[in-house]
Amino acid sequence: MGHNSFGDKVTITTFGESHGAAVGLIMDGLQPGLPLDLDFIQKEMDRRRPGGNSLGTPRKEDDKIEILSGVYEGIITGTPLTIIVENTNQKSKDYSNISEVFRPGHADFTYTHKYGIRDPRGGGRSSGRETLARVAAGAISKLYLNRANIICEAATIQIGNIKVSQSECNWDERTSNELYCPNNAKAEEMRNLINDLREKGDSIGGIIECRIKGLPVGLGDPVFDKVEALLAHAIMSIGATKGFEIGEGFNAATLTGSQNNDEINSEGFITNHAGGTLGGITSGQDIIFRVAFKPTPSISLSQKTIDKNNNNTEITIKGRHDPCICPRAVVVVEAMSSIVILNLMKEISLEDK
Amino acid sequence: MGHNSFGDKVTITTFGESHGAAVGLIMDGLQPGLPLDLDFIQKEMDRRRPGGNSLGTPRKEDDKIEILSGVYEGIITGTPLTIIVENTNQKSKDYSNISEVFRPGHADFTYTHKYGIRDPRGGGRSSGRETLARVAAGAISKLYLNRANIICEAATIQIGNIKVSQSECNWDERTSNELYCPNNAKAEEMRNLINDLREKGDSIGGIIECRIKGLPVGLGDPVFDKVEALLAHAIMSIGATKGFEIGEGFNAATLTGSQNNDEINSEGFITNHAGGTLGGITSGQDIIFRVAFKPTPSISLSQKTIDKNNNNTEITIKGRHDPCICPRAVVVVEAMSSIVILNLMKEISLEDK
Amino acid sequence: MGHNSFGDKVTITTFGESHGAAVGLIMDGLQPGLPLDLDFIQKEMDRRRPGGNSLGTPRKEDDKIEILSGVYEGIITGTPLTIIVENTNQKSKDYSNISEVFRPGHADFTYTHKYGIRDPRGGGRSSGRETLARVAAGAISKLYLNRANIICEAATIQIGNIKVSQSECNWDERTSNELYCPNNAKAEEMRNLINDLREKGDSIGGIIECRIKGLPVGLGDPVFDKVEALLAHAIMSIGATKGFEIGEGFNAATLTGSQNNDEINSEGFITNHAGGTLGGITSGQDIIFRVAFKPTPSISLSQKTIDKNNNNTEITIKGRHDPCICPRAVVVVEAMSSIVILNLMKEISLEDK
Amino acid sequence: MGHNSFGDKVTITTFGESHGAAVGLIMDGLQPGLPLDLDFIQKEMDRRRPGGNSLGTPRKEDDKIEILSGVYEGIITGTPLTIIVENTNQKSKDYSNISEVFRPGHADFTYTHKYGIRDPRGGGRSSGRETLARVAAGAISKLYLNRANIICEAATIQIGNIKVSQSECNWDERTSNELYCPNNAKAEEMRNLINDLREKGDSIGGIIECRIKGLPVGLGDPVFDKVEALLAHAIMSIGATKGFEIGEGFNAATLTGSQNNDEINSEGFITNHAGGTLGGITSGQDIIFRVAFKPTPSISLSQKTIDKNNNNTEITIKGRHDPCICPRAVVVVEAMSSIVILNLMKEISLEDK
Repeated sequence: MGHNSFGDKVTITTFGESHGAAVGLIMDGLQPGLPLDLDFIQKEMDRRRPGGNSLGTPRKEDDKIEILSGVYEGIITGTPLTIIVENTNQKSKDYSNISEVFRPGHADFTYTHKYGIRDPRGGGRSSGRETLARVAAGAISKLYLNRANIICEAATIQIGNIKVSQSECNWDERTSNELYCPNNAKAEEMRNLINDLREKGDSIGGIIECRIKGLPVGLGDPVFDKVEALLAHAIMSIGATKGFEIGEGFNAATLTGSQNNDEINSEGFITNHAGGTLGGITSGQDIIFRVAFKPTPSISLSQKTIDKNNNNTEITIKGRHDPCICPRAVVVVEAMSSIVILNLMKEISLEDK
Repeated sequence: MGHNSFGDKVTITTFGESHGAAVGLIMDGLQPGLPLDLDFIQKEMDRRRPGGNSLGTPRKEDDKIEILSGVYEGIITGTPLTIIVENTNQKSKDYSNISEVFRPGHADFTYTHKYGIRDPRGGGRSSGRETLARVAAGAISKLYLNRANIICEAATIQIGNIKVSQSECNWDERTSNELYCPNNAKAEEMRNLINDLREKGDSIGGIIECRIKGLPVGLGDPVFDKVEALLAHAIMSIGATKGFEIGEGFNAATLTGSQNNDEINSEGFITNHAGGTLGGITSGQDIIFRVAFKPTPSISLSQKTIDKNNNNTEITIKGRHDPCICPRAVVVVEAMSSIVILNLMKEISLEDK
Repeated sequence: MGHNSFGDKVTITTFGESHGAAVGLIMDGLQPGLPLDLDFIQKEMDRRRPGGNSLGTPRKEDDKIEILSGVYEGIITGTPLTIIVENTNQKSKDYSNISEVFRPGHADFTYTHKYGIRDPRGGGRSSGRETLARVAAGAISKLYLNRANIICEAATIQIGNIKVSQSECNWDERTSNELYCPNNAKAEEMRNLINDLREKGDSIGGIIECRIKGLPVGLGDPVFDKVEALLAHAIMSIGATKGFEIGEGFNAATLTGSQNNDEINSEGFITNHAGGTLGGITSGQDIIFRVAFKPTPSISLSQKTIDKNNNNTEITIKGRHDPCICPRAVVVVEAMSSIVILNLMKEISLEDK
Repeated sequence: MGHNSFGDKVTITTFGESHGAAVGLIMDGLQPGLPLDLDFIQKEMDRRRPGGNSLGTPRKEDDKIEILSGVYEGIITGTPLTIIVENTNQKSKDYSNISEVFRPGHADFTYTHKYGIRDPRGGGRSSGRETLARVAAGAISKLYLNRANIICEAATIQIGNIKVSQSECNWDERTSNELYCPNNAKAEEMRNLINDLREKGDSIGGIIECRIKGLPVGLGDPVFDKVEALLAHAIMSIGATKGFEIGEGFNAATLTGSQNNDEINSEGFITNHAGGTLGGITSGQDIIFRVAFKPTPSISLSQKTIDKNNNNTEITIKGRHDPCICPRAVVVVEAMSSIVILNLMKEISLEDK
């Protein structure tokens, strides 16, 4: 399987550079017969879109999806489903000043060393625009999961030092602010912090929490393909992620067994420190995990770097960039999680036979 | 590829239940010609062995490796290298009391629901004994990596609330105490905490840090197979892991771009907040990541649970168990990391052509 | 890896139904740096095109390729290379009469049973139009192989009972007739036979021979991935193939060991009964294999069949169809072989390290 | 997936050299709950065993299977099932005379060039002894298939020029002679031919036909994973195979569409020229395919060859070898076919959901 593919039962393959003709997706292995809800997919695409909220970059991109194959009279046929989004907003000139130097915190340095060729038009495959294809695949995965009453939702629970603790968390509020923050008051604080940093030409990191509800018992495998291993792989393949934790996560290091073990009674598990899996297999409880995102590396403050000939120089990155990636990354986290769970659901259907 | 295999260039497949005839490993895709240093492999196995230190369970297992194939006159031939370790210490009776109930924090519940069959003799494939095969594979991977001057080393940096901060960290001290703690004084504190909890019948979690040095620029791939994604998959497939972070990890959420970006000058990167990768590709800096381990679920304190017929009951787990898994998990973390890096090294040799 | 993908080092994924928006190809894993010769690819596409010769269906399709990604300023970047061909000649009406019945010799029956949904517009993924993507991938593979002085060429050596024996074979003549037959006189006989059968509304099978020259010693693997096993998989995945043989092939059944063994002297192998491999690994001799194609199932003679409700009926297939698939299949055989060899060449570069 | 593995739903991995400690098999992905019929497996192993019939080599090997994992109280648990067969008959000295020269028709030349290292003890992974693991995997596959009323049986239908035509074929007679020939009179002729050639120090090729009955409609996939492509891969991965054909096979080249198409009526297909698949998907008819085997390359007649230093020399291969591989290969053909079909059966269970 190529490095641009993910998932072994339902395989997604993404393609396209940020400023080539198009970016796109092939999804292979879908169960035939489901109506393809184009409106839902487009709505998910819009959640990811730059300019989709007042906090991000005001670049306007339409991100209109086009179906090339795999659908007949509105129904998924089970053949490879291909979606493309044309790149209509190609401003290659914007990138001319960065084609000769390596931007700190970006893939420029490593990408150039690896491939020899670097397409200066926006980062090649390292561009955030590649996530368009992931979101499309995630939306289609959700269509299947929702039919099985599985819900996958993420929220921004921390930006900088502004945190939403579990007791402050009101999950329903996450859809009533642009940050997908499950606490509207904290969302306002976060918004102010982001706007401050934008004015200073700086950026800020954050943490996203994802909850998956309605799962059956038995997804995943006890050795190399534990649910948390597959999720960690999927999530850490999203650009700018720096950490993944499930259930108590890093806090588990401070707990004793008697604190951390989830006791059971005839009505089920009494607590959910584990975060929804035991021995790598879903327990039927909600999966709860968190993802750390680094601050956007594109800042307009001056930074030391080198050019292609290893000469010292400084760089000031022009253009408009998101000071915090979290609001737009929420839907990407949901997408990658949904793709993992859809694959596991296909797997479990095997085990029943 | 089956769920008991990992790695697509050098593929390891592990097999064996904790108390069956043997556990073992097949390693396929090795470069022919390297002498197999059996002493080194056995030493690595001994690092993992229960009873290998004064803190763990006093169960004595020999864990003698036996080579079934893939070696001729002491040289690796490139054919599948098979190693088995016989299970000589089968005390199935020890487990009779737990065969009817689900141990909190263990895979008993999920495993039974998934497979229908549960081998009560020690957890089936969820047994820690499966890591024997991983350690053997890791040792062989290290033989190759060391030849390329790549060093992969892990250390216990936190147990409970006893932490070794970066300023307190003396990496060389990690080999002078049983905990692989890079600070002997903290190691003594940790040892006291573990012994206290053992007497109480309880257990404790911890954090392991892993550093990989000597890497070339260019390992990994910019989309789904980012180095950190492959490492996260590998590490989160180890039992009892709850979190993975690279570089600044979860702390990156609190940083600004100007704090977190690693500036560059003509001598290289000035800092290493990233933890050794940019855009999913190694930058030539050290890879530094951390792993959270939960407290061992086997505690002798009484816990609420249910039996197979969903009746409420209580369980007290007999036998001797490690109150903290970290000292033995250090070598498993190194092993899984080494397997990932060996696979990526094989990959990069392709790119050169 | 999805069922619409092939190749583990250089992975091709094809998509598109015969009469949807487009058919296409993603090729992942290409070595960066090679100029993409669009003219060569288009010429290969034209060799496959219906109406590309006077013997086939006169349907005119342009089959113009369009590059969506993976190329920058004419150079292959190593990112997924995506090619599409729009379906401009959609005559869905042509197929209305066959949407209710199962055409004998076609995939209609099995496809309908497998997927539940059948797109009557030309056979879904079973359409010959899917081979467009294979030919594009083959053309790109040839660009790489030719640079390594590896040449892959196929020829029509039998149609019906008209055979070109090895002594009659003049390999250079294959490019001087539309049938790619390595004997112009036989080509004329074949052409007459095909035209006769076309007038009768019938069709005819044939045999294609493929020769791959310039191979290094050592491609392939001694167990499941023998060169001949990979080639057989690739070739038998082409529609209408019924047999694959290498070297002496089925004739080997009649030979003794002393007749069939290829003796060796200091200048190399004295004969090539093996067809270029020993123990599944290339010997440096030419690979020579043959493929049997069945007669095109689309014939205008009346045939017994059933409709979707299992009622007996008869069918007469309208429209223009190739009475013999071989002239157009020659380039598809070359394409699939080239993809296999390109994958093996990537593999061997590993072994050198 | 490594090169010593096959099958993506139920994955077999084989290991072991002919004269190392053991050869063996891991089978991953089996459905839990089936009793493991050890007697049946051992009987299948005995069918493959040298000395299992009066025609083959009189070398006696016990080939006793030993289960290392994956079975609990006689029931398959679904964890990796590991079987080994110890190599008790190690006569390394027998091979001393061939370690310096390349045997014509053997993998010696290619293997040495590929790996640099050659274990002279019987051919390394190219040894026929590797098929032990395939037969064990095939036997286990048959246990599952038989439960679904799928029967996979092969027979020797040609040796040299002695052929059993379809009209002479009495399938039931295949179990009443050592050659698995479906015509006892022809079997006697074949036996005489083989014995003649043995006395002359020569060998002979043959053809095996395999029939798979009781298949559901819908196995396989319309593009790269057509049933015949997967079978061809599996079969051509058996040593000494030179050709694979399904249904009419190479004879289809001589037929017209009106002769070759299988017409249908309300009771089903009227003929079976196709050999059980349409568009790569099973039609519910019997799969019928044939495999060409070359004559055993080990002959005691003198042959020209070279030594490791490229000096001309002659070789006379000592020891006892099968003059014809077909009688023992019958069970290997059945095994590889059964593994393919078991994988496809797992796949189809997905499609139902």
